[in-house]
Amino acid sequence: MKGIIFVIDGMGDRPVKELGNKTPLENARTPNMDKMVKEGITGIMDTIRPGVRPGSDTAHLTLLGYDPYEVYTGRGPFEAAGVDVDVQPGDIAFRCNFSTADEDLTITDRRAGRIENRTDEISETINQMKIDDNVEVIFKESTGHRAVLVLRGEGLSDQITDADPKHEGNKPKTVKPLNDSQEAKYTADVVNQFVVKSYEMLKDHPVNLERIENGENPANIVLPRGVGAVPTVTPFEEKYGLKAACVAETGLIQGIGKLAGMDIIHIPGATGGITTDIDSVHKHIVDTISSDKYDFILVNVDGADEAGHDGDIFGKRDFIEKVDKIMGDLDKMDDIVLFVTADHSTPVGVMDHTGDPVPVFFKAPGLRVDDVKEYGERAAAKGGLCRIRGSDVIYMIRDLMNVIPKFGA
Amino acid sequence: MKGIIFVIDGMGDRPVKELGNKTPLENARTPNMDKMVKEGITGIMDTIRPGVRPGSDTAHLTLLGYDPYEVYTGRGPFEAAGVDVDVQPGDIAFRCNFSTADEDLTITDRRAGRIENRTDEISETINQMKIDDNVEVIFKESTGHRAVLVLRGEGLSDQITDADPKHEGNKPKTVKPLNDSQEAKYTADVVNQFVVKSYEMLKDHPVNLERIENGENPANIVLPRGVGAVPTVTPFEEKYGLKAACVAETGLIQGIGKLAGMDIIHIPGATGGITTDIDSVHKHIVDTISSDKYDFILVNVDGADEAGHDGDIFGKRDFIEKVDKIMGDLDKMDDIVLFVTADHSTPVGVMDHTGDPVPVFFKAPGLRVDDVKEYGERAAAKGGLCRIRGSDVIYMIRDLMNVIPKFGA
Repeated sequence: MKGIIFVIDGMGDRPVKELGNKTPLENARTPNMDKMVKEGITGIMDTIRPGVRPGSDTAHLTLLGYDPYEVYTGRGPFEAAGVDVDVQPGDIAFRCNFSTADEDLTITDRRAGRIENRTDEISETINQMKIDDNVEVIFKESTGHRAVLVLRGEGLSDQITDADPKHEGNKPKTVKPLNDSQEAKYTADVVNQFVVKSYEMLKDHPVNLERIENGENPANIVLPRGVGAVPTVTPFEEKYGLKAACVAETGLIQGIGKLAGMDIIHIPGATGGITTDIDSVHKHIVDTISSDKYDFILVNVDGADEAGHDGDIFGKRDFIEKVDKIMGDLDKMDDIVLFVTADHSTPVGVMDHTGDPVPVFFKAPGLRVDDVKEYGERAAAKGGLCRIRGSDVIYMIRDLMNVIPKFGA
Repeated sequence: MKGIIFVIDGMGDRPVKELGNKTPLENARTPNMDKMVKEGITGIMDTIRPGVRPGSDTAHLTLLGYDPYEVYTGRGPFEAAGVDVDVQPGDIAFRCNFSTADEDLTITDRRAGRIENRTDEISETINQMKIDDNVEVIFKESTGHRAVLVLRGEGLSDQITDADPKHEGNKPKTVKPLNDSQEAKYTADVVNQFVVKSYEMLKDHPVNLERIENGENPANIVLPRGVGAVPTVTPFEEKYGLKAACVAETGLIQGIGKLAGMDIIHIPGATGGITTDIDSVHKHIVDTISSDKYDFILVNVDGADEAGHDGDIFGKRDFIEKVDKIMGDLDKMDDIVLFVTADHSTPVGVMDHTGDPVPVFFKAPGLRVDDVKEYGERAAAKGGLCRIRGSDVIYMIRDLMNVIPKFGA
C-alpha cells in the first residue's frame, strides 16, 4: 500500500456570484474527482485549527505530521532548502529579492526589471562577501528575481525585522532586533551591513553594466525578508518508517520536503501557475507513484492558489478542471491510499488565504463509503469524515495503509 | 466589519415531552433567527469540550479566547469585577450572601429576608473591619442579598473551602485549607474570623434593628463562597487589536468583560430573568453595535438560563421567542459578522447546566451558506460548520472579519 497526499494548493473558496453562488470547485466539471468521491469518504478539514489562516508552509508541515508551532520560524529556511542550499539547524535563512536601487539606496524596482538570466553570476559575487570572522554568508539565486541568503555562525538570532520596504520609492528598512538579546542586535547589524555591501559589490557588476546598457534595471541590491532559524526536523522516514518523495512545483514546498528528508522530484516546465506544463506535472506524479522506490508521496500543484491570489475566478475554476483531468490515472491505481485536499482556502473574493475549512476525500480499499456524490466544499461538509484537522491526516493515512502501530493492547 | 458574539444564556436543551418532544428552541417561533440560519451557516458547538458542563463564566472566557483552565480559579473574581471593585491580580475574591443568624450563629435565612435596600450602609460597616495588619478587607454589595468580598495582601491563597453551609439550620462551615501551605492555613483563618466579626459588627446595625422592628429578617452575617484568586488576564484589545464592549445583564458576565478590559454597557431594567425589560436590552444592544466606538461586541441575555434552572418549560420557550423579536434589527445590519450561540445547555428537565452541545450559527458576508432552514439543536447538527469548539470561535470570527494574521506564508 502506498500513501499519497495530493494537495491542490489554495483550492478552497467561498460562493462566488459570477459562478451562480457556487465556489470554483463546485462550479468546475470534475468527473474524475467526483467518481473518487462517490467511491470514497469525504469531509472538511481545518488544516491547523478552525479560523486560523494557514500559510502553504505551515499547512504542509502539519499535513506531514510536524507541529508548525514548533518547527516553523519563518519562510526563509524552507526557501533555502528548496534551492538546494545545504542548510543546518541554527542557520539563519532569508528569502531575498534582487532589486534596483539608486545612489542613495532608494529602491526604484523591487524586482530588478524581473531579471531572469545570469543571476548565478551575481550570486557568485555576493558569496564572496565578508562581514566579519564570525559569520559565513551563503547566497544562492532562485527563480527570476528571487534568491536566498543563509547566515551561519555562532551567536545569531532570527528575532529581527525585515529589510524589504515592500514599496518602491523607499530605502531599505533598517533591520531591528525584536528583543534585547546580544544575538538579535548582532544579527540585525549583520543584515544591515549585508544590504549596504550588496549594493557596493553589485553596482558595477558586469551583468548590471550590461543590463544598464540594454536599458534594463540592474540587480544592484539584495533585500532579505522572511527570516527564520533553520529548525531541527526529524526526517519523515525516521518518524514513520516510510520512504518518501515530494513532487511539487514550487521551491517552498520542495524545501519542506527537503527538510523532511524526502526525495525531491523536479518537474521540468512546472511554473506553479495556471499555465504550468500540466502534462509534465502529470507524468512526474504518475511516474513517481508507479515507481517501486517510495511508500509515501506528497504531491502539490499550485495554480489554484495563484489564481485565488489574483482574484481570477474562471482561471481558478479552469485550473481545477485541468487538475481533475490528471486524476484519472490515480483513480485506476490499486493499492494506494489517496488523500486529496487543499492546504488552505484562497478565495478569489479575498485574494489571500483564509481560515475556511477545505474539502477533502480519501480513496482507498476498505473505506466506509459515504453518500456524497461530488467534490465540493459544501457537499464535503456532509461527508462521513465530518470535520477533521490537518494534524489527523498523517495518522489516518497510515491507518488506512495499515502501517500505524497499535497504541495499547 | 464588526464582530458580534450573541449569547443566549443556557438556551440549549433536550427534547421535552410537553413540547411534543421538541426542545424549547425547536418549539419556539423564531422567524428572525430562522431567516438568518437560512442565509448563514450552522453547526453545533462544545463550548469547552464534549461532555464538559460549562459554567457561564468558563464558557464566556472560552468564547473570548481565554483558556478557562488557566484563568478561572473561581467565580469570586468575576463577581467582584462585575460590581466595579478594582480587583488586582493576586487578590482573593468571594461572592457572599447577606444572611440571618441567631445568637449561636445558626443560619436561619440564607438570603436575609431577600433584603433589597440599604445594603450599601451595611457594606460600609463591613469595610471598616480590621483582621490584622497583613490583609485589607474590601467589601461591596451587589444586587439583593448578594455581595462580594476581596482580601488583599501578601501570603494569601484561594486553596480554601467555603463558609456558606448551603442549607438553613446549620452554622457557617469552618473554612479549611485545601493544602498544607502556610498561605492556605492563614487565609482560612482570616475568612473564619471575617464571618464571626461580620456577625459582631452587624447584629446591632441600625439597618438591622429597623428590619427586626419591621418583622424582617436582619442581614446580620456575611457568608463567603466561590473563592478565587484574581487572575492576570491579557486585555482583549491587546490580544486581538479589537476595541470591545460587553452588553450583558448580569454582574458575572459584566465582570468577565471588565477583567478582559472591555467597556461595560449597563442596561437599565435588565434583571437577567424572563421578565427582564427586553426593550431596554434591545435598545442597548442595537445602540452599542451601531456606535462607531467598537470593533467587537459581546452580548449576553440571561432569561433562558434562569428558566432552565427553574424547570420552566414554557417560560423558557417564550423567552427565546422574545429574544428572537429583538434579532430582526441585527438581520438588517450589513458589515457585521454575527455569531449566535448559547454558552451551554440548561435543560428544563435537568434544571442545571449540562454538557450537551449548543446550536450555533454565523451570519456574515461570504459564508458557505448551508441548507439548514431553522434554528434548533438537531437542525444545527446537520449544518455546514459540523461540530466546533468554543475555543475555535474567536479565531473563526476574526477570520470572517478578515483581521486575523496569517500563520506562515
